[in-house]
Amino acid sequence: SVNPDLAMERQTASFNVEKLTALLDGGVEQTRIRRAVVAAIESDPVFSRENQYFQTQNERYEAAVRKAVHLQKKMHEMGWTENGPEYKYIYRALSGDVAFLLHRVFMRSISVLGSDKQVAKWIPPATQHQLIGSYSQTELGHGTYLQGLETTAVFDVATQEFILNTPKISAMKWWPGDLGRSATHTVVFAQLYIHGKCYGIHPFIVQVRSLQDHSLCPGIIAGDIGPKMNFEHIDNGYLMLKNVRIPRDNMLSKFCEVRPDGTYVRQGSQKINYFTMTTLRISLLSDEVMTPLMKACTIAIRYSAVRRQSKLKPGEQEAKILDYQTQQEKLLPQLAAAYAFHFINNYLQELFDKGYREIQRKNFDMLPELHALSSGFKAVITHHSTAAVEICLRACGGHGYSLLSGLPSLYTKILASCIYEGENTILLLQTARFLIKCFMAASAGQPVPPSVTYLAAVKPGKCPAKNKLDFLSPDIYTEAYQHVAVRLISSTATKLQDLIQSGVKKYDAWNQCTVQLVQAAKAHCHYIAVKNFAETVERLETKAGIQRIMKLLCDLFALHGIFSNTGAFLHDGYISAAQMDMVTASYLDLLAVIRKDAVPLVDAFDFTDKSLNSALGSYDGQVYQRLYEWAQKSPTNKMSPAYERYLKPLLHNTLSKL
Amino acid sequence: SVNPDLAMERQTASFNVEKLTALLDGGVEQTRIRRAVVAAIESDPVFSRENQYFQTQNERYEAAVRKAVHLQKKMHEMGWTENGPEYKYIYRALSGDVAFLLHRVFMRSISVLGSDKQVAKWIPPATQHQLIGSYSQTELGHGTYLQGLETTAVFDVATQEFILNTPKISAMKWWPGDLGRSATHTVVFAQLYIHGKCYGIHPFIVQVRSLQDHSLCPGIIAGDIGPKMNFEHIDNGYLMLKNVRIPRDNMLSKFCEVRPDGTYVRQGSQKINYFTMTTLRISLLSDEVMTPLMKACTIAIRYSAVRRQSKLKPGEQEAKILDYQTQQEKLLPQLAAAYAFHFINNYLQELFDKGYREIQRKNFDMLPELHALSSGFKAVITHHSTAAVEICLRACGGHGYSLLSGLPSLYTKILASCIYEGENTILLLQTARFLIKCFMAASAGQPVPPSVTYLAAVKPGKCPAKNKLDFLSPDIYTEAYQHVAVRLISSTATKLQDLIQSGVKKYDAWNQCTVQLVQAAKAHCHYIAVKNFAETVERLETKAGIQRIMKLLCDLFALHGIFSNTGAFLHDGYISAAQMDMVTASYLDLLAVIRKDAVPLVDAFDFTDKSLNSALGSYDGQVYQRLYEWAQKSPTNKMSPAYERYLKPLLHNTLSKL
Repeated sequence: SVNPDLAMERQTASFNVEKLTALLDGGVEQTRIRRAVVAAIESDPVFSRENQYFQTQNERYEAAVRKAVHLQKKMHEMGWTENGPEYKYIYRALSGDVAFLLHRVFMRSISVLGSDKQVAKWIPPATQHQLIGSYSQTELGHGTYLQGLETTAVFDVATQEFILNTPKISAMKWWPGDLGRSATHTVVFAQLYIHGKCYGIHPFIVQVRSLQDHSLCPGIIAGDIGPKMNFEHIDNGYLMLKNVRIPRDNMLSKFCEVRPDGTYVRQGSQKINYFTMTTLRISLLSDEVMTPLMKACTIAIRYSAVRRQSKLKPGEQEAKILDYQTQQEKLLPQLAAAYAFHFINNYLQELFDKGYREIQRKNFDMLPELHALSSGFKAVITHHSTAAVEICLRACGGHGYSLLSGLPSLYTKILASCIYEGENTILLLQTARFLIKCFMAASAGQPVPPSVTYLAAVKPGKCPAKNKLDFLSPDIYTEAYQHVAVRLISSTATKLQDLIQSGVKKYDAWNQCTVQLVQAAKAHCHYIAVKNFAETVERLETKAGIQRIMKLLCDLFALHGIFSNTGAFLHDGYISAAQMDMVTASYLDLLAVIRKDAVPLVDAFDFTDKSLNSALGSYDGQVYQRLYEWAQKSPTNKMSPAYERYLKPLLHNTLSKL
Repeated sequence: SVNPDLAMERQTASFNVEKLTALLDGGVEQTRIRRAVVAAIESDPVFSRENQYFQTQNERYEAAVRKAVHLQKKMHEMGWTENGPEYKYIYRALSGDVAFLLHRVFMRSISVLGSDKQVAKWIPPATQHQLIGSYSQTELGHGTYLQGLETTAVFDVATQEFILNTPKISAMKWWPGDLGRSATHTVVFAQLYIHGKCYGIHPFIVQVRSLQDHSLCPGIIAGDIGPKMNFEHIDNGYLMLKNVRIPRDNMLSKFCEVRPDGTYVRQGSQKINYFTMTTLRISLLSDEVMTPLMKACTIAIRYSAVRRQSKLKPGEQEAKILDYQTQQEKLLPQLAAAYAFHFINNYLQELFDKGYREIQRKNFDMLPELHALSSGFKAVITHHSTAAVEICLRACGGHGYSLLSGLPSLYTKILASCIYEGENTILLLQTARFLIKCFMAASAGQPVPPSVTYLAAVKPGKCPAKNKLDFLSPDIYTEAYQHVAVRLISSTATKLQDLIQSGVKKYDAWNQCTVQLVQAAKAHCHYIAVKNFAETVERLETKAGIQRIMKLLCDLFALHGIFSNTGAFLHDGYISAAQMDMVTASYLDLLAVIRKDAVPLVDAFDFTDKSLNSALGSYDGQVYQRLYEWAQKSPTNKMSPAYERYLKPLLHNTLSKL
């Protein structure tokens, strides 16, 4: 039975929830396929996550391996293939709680970086899991700066082998997933040396464990890096190499080859390889960032519709916390962001598909723009979403702090996305470098890529809004975002130039501008996200109330960004103080309007109770019953030896007399 | 051997670290006592936290009980008493990793709320641990709003007993520490009913477990609430009462008594009780908030001085990440905040001591101000410190994400401080209510408490700064903070009045202003923190470089607040755009200056390696060695059954054929 407080929220939905779900999925057929996958996965007890919050790191690892092995069987049973329409829903349905994710990266890197011969040799046994692969790039002392990696691979002409070594502790491979306990093979990135000359970083296939008994191979020191904030199910590992010899054929050689005599040969363009890496940043957003954000919104908003606390009006019953303006101000902007990010992700996916087609035609013109967009949006979306999940957690008070709410694990997992696949600050600075370059080009009248043409059309001007309703016009707020982005990019470019002209070295000048460059890159991405949301709303069909509610969310996303960052808009008077008060008024008004549809808006994300795995977020809103029943199953409700050992002697005063 | 990169940082300290430590401790004698306590605790293997990151919730609980019992012995051995000078350092030395914390709250509530007879009966056996107490207030459905608690205590005149009940699931006690597994007794807050009439919430002593065999008493259903984001060592519990009868004498009756015939009598003033609760919010700041913040700063800054990544200058070796402006901008404001909060905490402690003396003289005039300050600063300091620890964690990249860095557990623990002892938003609204009241009074020419007299002296004006150096003048920035606080309080008061005059009900009007009221309360606290920091610096002795470096940190704290919240200062033109550019310039300059003393500034916090319990933060900076050695001890480096069960059959292709 559904909690009546929650049922009531659904009765008054202003739009058709099922239609919105189909819109998010990309069509009713996609919704159908997704639900079929979810149903198949969730009805299989092997994939259950019910005990997850009670399990140790060892138990989580074991379960993840079991699930990964079982998944092979399941896919066969269900007729799902890696190229089928179901495939992309499997990982979401498993909530990522499965091993061998790096095995896929291992296979992809061989496919992309290996010669035809290498692909033919390694891919079939890898596909059949006759070996398990990992991907060893990061070292204890080296992450972001790949050129700094210290692992060495020295070519021995006599034996036609590479000799791999970890010259010092900072060179130890650290973090590779699946490497700690599972992997038999890995792709190792190492500095290639031939006849004493260093040729830079190259990829080598190295066997680390015996295929017979899984013991470590000679010269290999490897293990698990221990406890982390999340990802307990993954055996992130370490690896030290001591004179490990591998055949010459094990260097992945699509782009670079070492001939038997030690001649080093480069061939072809690596650009498609860089493009693949860039694409990875975008492809992770959906599963690793947007899904957790949407889950957190679902949990926090459903809970806020059933949790009653304090009184809004004297004499009435305690109010739903969702009726407090402060609670709305915490949660609804996060909900709007979830939709905004979903639509910008669609935009980026399309752009990257287009980019891929161009690159196949050997046209690499789009690469710098795609790199800048993927870096910037990876950073901006992971940062905002992490902050948003934390807000959702805190907005649920004490119960949000219980692992059983599901929110702590969503938070600790999404947090990692700010760090992996490029640390966010570094990425934003890469976007900023592109923006500064384009701004200079645009200022000099040269052509620039489509996403930055706005830099050429700098208009000083003022915001034309006359009253608070004007701020619900997408033209008004999109223009304001554009203005701020241009101002921040141009003023930082000026500062940079001034410093250099005053005699500061170029690299010092750059460092002295980085705080502001990061701000500029964020402003650029924020502008594009707002513009894309507004354009998406334009294109929606007006039926079933979908366009209306999406327009409101777009307004909220845009005005929240202004309200939380007023200084950027006030600085040069583009928005006046009086206009800023109108923004605030419109923004607060919007909260009260969207609040009415808050529950239907999270229902549209269409998460099952099992996928949320949350005592606070279930569809029926029976929060307290669920917390109580679940807590009773906790291992902490078994007898503890602490009683006999310490408590009893203390209480009975039989401890050795003080 | 100290990492040379770290040693170098210490050689160039501009001030005497030992003198700063003594200043923080409140004198050299305090430093000596603290170090003696730390040495005694850390040399005792029972108190070791070395395995903490590897332990399950059950193991953590068991260790915490063991430590709590051992601590009794230790205190006796060392001659430490609850009233001695060592006492306050014990908890810090244990990093809070000990059980029976609620036992002290149990005892305090009896001392404060109990009659003399009750104190005489319960305190001696509690002191000797012949019973273990807890404190049961919060319910599944009720936290903030105490009047909403649903547990009932019905007086039965016939038997002279109270009959306690949990009428429905939302009334179940939930969260009380030590209750899940340890406590034998607890203070239960329940609605008192006499002859069918409800007299509101009262405290009752209830036995929950047998003193003989620790089994649950009749009518008691209790257990552990299961896994949480942190506090694994504490058995937060649940409690359901089914017709539990307790004698009339078990109602704590210093302020309210039920006579044998059922007559209800109020006596004395409860104000000193409210004062005690208010004091608690301040007293938790030091151990639970400032210490974790200082630890996080120590870890992240030491790590940033030894971690090298990418190149700042072409041709040189990779740079320390602390030399990047973006890294400085992440960490140094957090360091400045740690000092700012330390000094405001001293200020609040003194104010509360004064308040206590006044209250003992039956002068309750200071109560509203103390309540407003303690609410506001509890919220502001916990919020900022939580955000700061998260920034420190993320600033350490992947290694910060490892539990072995110590940062994840500092974060997950400090996060709870935003929720317990009053949820932050609620507390800020209480401060705001006080501010609005005082603003109205001040506007009407009535006297107001000292901390808000500035509300009476509203000057419109503009910031007089002429160049970036002017913004290093405490008068200039303190004035700016004051101006913003007055503006936000007065404009929200006006909005509130306008709404009410336009016919909106008072409670609706209040709700519609709460987002802005929260901003106003924060601005008030921020102003006081800046002012107090500046005044503290004024009073410092000029010797040994202490005043100089504290002045720089004060400037940084103030300018960081303006830089991160420019809109508030730009809104009415108090600070112009040109002046804001000066703020930015001065702020960025300060980062480069303070960076030089960053390591000595965290060294002054004087944490031992054992108390940091961090592979990244140790005094010698041997990060990689420590991570590697520690990870090898992880239970995830033991053989897993996953190999024989799942991996071997998969690799050997002996899984039942797909």
